[in-house]
Amino acid sequence: MQKEPNIIGVEFSSLGNDTFYSYNPATGTNNDYLFHKATEAEIESAAKKAAAAFQTYRKKTGKEKAAFLSAIADKISNTGEALITICCAETALPPARIEGERARTVNQLKMFAALLLEGSWVDARIDTAMPDRTPLAKPDLRSIHIPIGPVVVFGASNFPLAFSVAGGDMASALAAGCTVIVKAHPAHPATSAIIGRAIQAAAIETGMPDGVFSLLFDNGISVGQQLVKHPLIKAVGFTGSYKAGKAIFDAAAARPEPIPVYAEMSSVNPVFILPQMMHSKGKEIAAAYSLSLTMGVGQFCTNPGVLFYQSENGGFKESLKTALEQTKAGVMLTKTILDSYNAGVNERLAMAGVSKFAMGDESTAGNNLATPILMEVDNQSFDTAPTLKEEVFGPAGVVVSMATKKEMMEAAMTMFGQLTATVHGTDEELIEYADLLDILEQKAGRVVINGFPTGVEVSHAMVHGGPFPATTDSKTTSVGTAAIYRFTRPVCYQNMPQSLLPEELKNENSLKIFRMINGEITDKDIVQ
Amino acid sequence: MQKEPNIIGVEFSSLGNDTFYSYNPATGTNNDYLFHKATEAEIESAAKKAAAAFQTYRKKTGKEKAAFLSAIADKISNTGEALITICCAETALPPARIEGERARTVNQLKMFAALLLEGSWVDARIDTAMPDRTPLAKPDLRSIHIPIGPVVVFGASNFPLAFSVAGGDMASALAAGCTVIVKAHPAHPATSAIIGRAIQAAAIETGMPDGVFSLLFDNGISVGQQLVKHPLIKAVGFTGSYKAGKAIFDAAAARPEPIPVYAEMSSVNPVFILPQMMHSKGKEIAAAYSLSLTMGVGQFCTNPGVLFYQSENGGFKESLKTALEQTKAGVMLTKTILDSYNAGVNERLAMAGVSKFAMGDESTAGNNLATPILMEVDNQSFDTAPTLKEEVFGPAGVVVSMATKKEMMEAAMTMFGQLTATVHGTDEELIEYADLLDILEQKAGRVVINGFPTGVEVSHAMVHGGPFPATTDSKTTSVGTAAIYRFTRPVCYQNMPQSLLPEELKNENSLKIFRMINGEITDKDIVQ
Repeated sequence: MQKEPNIIGVEFSSLGNDTFYSYNPATGTNNDYLFHKATEAEIESAAKKAAAAFQTYRKKTGKEKAAFLSAIADKISNTGEALITICCAETALPPARIEGERARTVNQLKMFAALLLEGSWVDARIDTAMPDRTPLAKPDLRSIHIPIGPVVVFGASNFPLAFSVAGGDMASALAAGCTVIVKAHPAHPATSAIIGRAIQAAAIETGMPDGVFSLLFDNGISVGQQLVKHPLIKAVGFTGSYKAGKAIFDAAAARPEPIPVYAEMSSVNPVFILPQMMHSKGKEIAAAYSLSLTMGVGQFCTNPGVLFYQSENGGFKESLKTALEQTKAGVMLTKTILDSYNAGVNERLAMAGVSKFAMGDESTAGNNLATPILMEVDNQSFDTAPTLKEEVFGPAGVVVSMATKKEMMEAAMTMFGQLTATVHGTDEELIEYADLLDILEQKAGRVVINGFPTGVEVSHAMVHGGPFPATTDSKTTSVGTAAIYRFTRPVCYQNMPQSLLPEELKNENSLKIFRMINGEITDKDIVQ
Repeated sequence: MQKEPNIIGVEFSSLGNDTFYSYNPATGTNNDYLFHKATEAEIESAAKKAAAAFQTYRKKTGKEKAAFLSAIADKISNTGEALITICCAETALPPARIEGERARTVNQLKMFAALLLEGSWVDARIDTAMPDRTPLAKPDLRSIHIPIGPVVVFGASNFPLAFSVAGGDMASALAAGCTVIVKAHPAHPATSAIIGRAIQAAAIETGMPDGVFSLLFDNGISVGQQLVKHPLIKAVGFTGSYKAGKAIFDAAAARPEPIPVYAEMSSVNPVFILPQMMHSKGKEIAAAYSLSLTMGVGQFCTNPGVLFYQSENGGFKESLKTALEQTKAGVMLTKTILDSYNAGVNERLAMAGVSKFAMGDESTAGNNLATPILMEVDNQSFDTAPTLKEEVFGPAGVVVSMATKKEMMEAAMTMFGQLTATVHGTDEELIEYADLLDILEQKAGRVVINGFPTGVEVSHAMVHGGPFPATTDSKTTSVGTAAIYRFTRPVCYQNMPQSLLPEELKNENSLKIFRMINGEITDKDIVQ
């Protein structure tokens, strides 16, 4: 039995008497790892350390922060088979998936390191003085993005690496110059502990201040609640259910000093198949849709849970039925998630107009199994039942047939905010349906053409966000380099002497970054 | 008696029976203008029109929106003496101030027009496809900022033009592509009506959709409350008191779909005078401080309400006393503001350790007069009384002497979030006090050196914002071109055909804007 302590800066701490085990959802048994739920004293210590470390860490150069992120990446690369083994045992996800996710997590850290080394992300703006202007002299004004303070990140159940301890939230917060406290997800605490130790070691090795990173454990909600309410915490990153995300948002808004919460919560990621494309590629689209819906037992934020089409064609329905029926039942991440999945499916099957269209293969033996399902519903029943427009987390899809383009437009208009919206159409009919695309871009953070939304690219242009309830802040993304701005704010210096300005704002552009000087974007020096 | 209706798109509407008059705070009498408080039906109509118009307006090109903003600027330029006369009668502000504010408002609209014509503000990001990448092909991803929807703007009492109907909030929201409903401030409804008619005429002249702009009147809070809660409204801009701003923030957060509120609320804008500078320029700084504190009867968001210094020197206190005692009492914007001012001053004078240091000249005759005041308090009393760290809106200052640099640092650390923080020091001692500057940039949106915070420049690098309670969103500014991002969000297009992409994201960079292409900032085309 391995006891894994909370990580509080450079220290380990197991003060609490309340313990829990790592759990294997496939076998229904505990893994050999024991965790101590963080105590109030440990939470206080982590918060104080994060605030103290912030005073040092916020002044680190881009190069220094990049070295830290790169060291984390290297250490995670070197976690070897041990990480894969325990992560699979905690999540029931296959080794190839975990290996891929580790690579993605490492690349994400390296991407932020590259962003810091390039340096233009700070959005340096300089308006030079006009001392002789009348009636009033114009002062010298220079602004830049600075980090906002200690950040709390909640590990997500469905991405034990890429949206967890060293995931996008933590990588972007550290890149911004914020210190971070992660609340590990209880569905993969041993995985979290390995990653936490890697980060702690990287912090020590690269000379980062004690408290730049802490990792706290809890199998309930009280540690998270206390962290969100702690006055030293200045922002929160979260990926998970609507219920938990909204509760965190509400708690943060109710603080004496409200703080921003970036919660990525709930999305059915609608897919629209246009008639010509249905005719020419219905069969292929059906198979690909079934795959996107059921991969990873449907446990993706961008899982396409609702599909709209007009007349059935090109072998679409037959192919869809066949593909889904050949999909095996899979082990879900936790018993709670499975229970919610089954309840969500049963609730829908009991609704007027909803019928079972296809079920996955239930022959697989094992615990905690979710069977993929496709439900069919007529347009009018769908239109009048908001529940059908809400997410069921897991491999369940709702297929809706519509008579006309107009009905498709109306369905799009009544959807809630989404992470993604997808359209399959020929070039010709995409132009004909430009008004549908226009509605969809108002509903979603990302509009996907002739593809599927699962598989979120980590890049500069990615937007993994969207209008409520997809997230609590549609103005940001939780994937890609723009995620850094969630954890910064601009500050302006008026008539500050050159020697006291941040390097990015001095007349001499020693970092060779792009800056906006009197409204023009340039990488030149200012010659005065 | 002139009756001024609500403006709802291209229409005028006076359905309500509840009326109120424009009021002259200097004479204590009504002006000859009557207003109908907007009814629920009128609110509903304005919201529906704003939502319908948004579908057209959001697709307008930068050039088209720039033409609209320029037309508004021209029409406001041409409001002539009529505007100045009524605006002075409603606010008791002097004509020169109103003329200056009109010029500022016009220039602000033109600045946003120029931003739109240049076009790079959309933050276009393009990551080109790598179809042959293994294990997964990389899709083509392109992102851009799009407008978020209909916006409600609350006119501010203290800037009847520049932070009111055609002020920074409206200009930035229209520039972003959002439609706007303004709730006029009841302290200057006739001024608001003139500006509202100018905007309405500009909208019609430049072919903007019916509902791109509406203006509603109310002398209470119910119209504003209903607007903030209306499901078609997607963001709110506000400048005013902490109490009102926080109530709007809370109402917006409690909506079924929470929306962002950009409320600029409360700041004492601390000023720190360092010893050497006190020695060499104490006298001049004292006179300039008194002027900054009392100009416009102290009714500025950036009014410097608290001053810290170490030992008195260079004739500082004498000069400060003389300057303030020569300042005349002035008419405040409203009776409510005056009552709050007097209550705030009396509350402080009754506190332990607080004494009257200087009073302004009360000899002026007239109504609604506020007398400038400077209070003195010892550091320990200041430190233990949070009230002294809160804003008194008006010409009241608190002067705190401290024994050491350490005390100054501690005072800085315990201040709430601020719009600005100011330091007067020689080049040499600014370096010595770099750690003080470091604290202040964490407390404020703008750090001013050897100047005063009043007189907020409208430019690219300006940050008029800051940590709570200065604003409800420290990540933004309400002055300057960056204010536009309060009303936008990013959207990403995946594998979208060229012909359907926004002009800013096509391979050919026809607008010659700066874009981030595969991480590099460039104004080049993409050649594929």
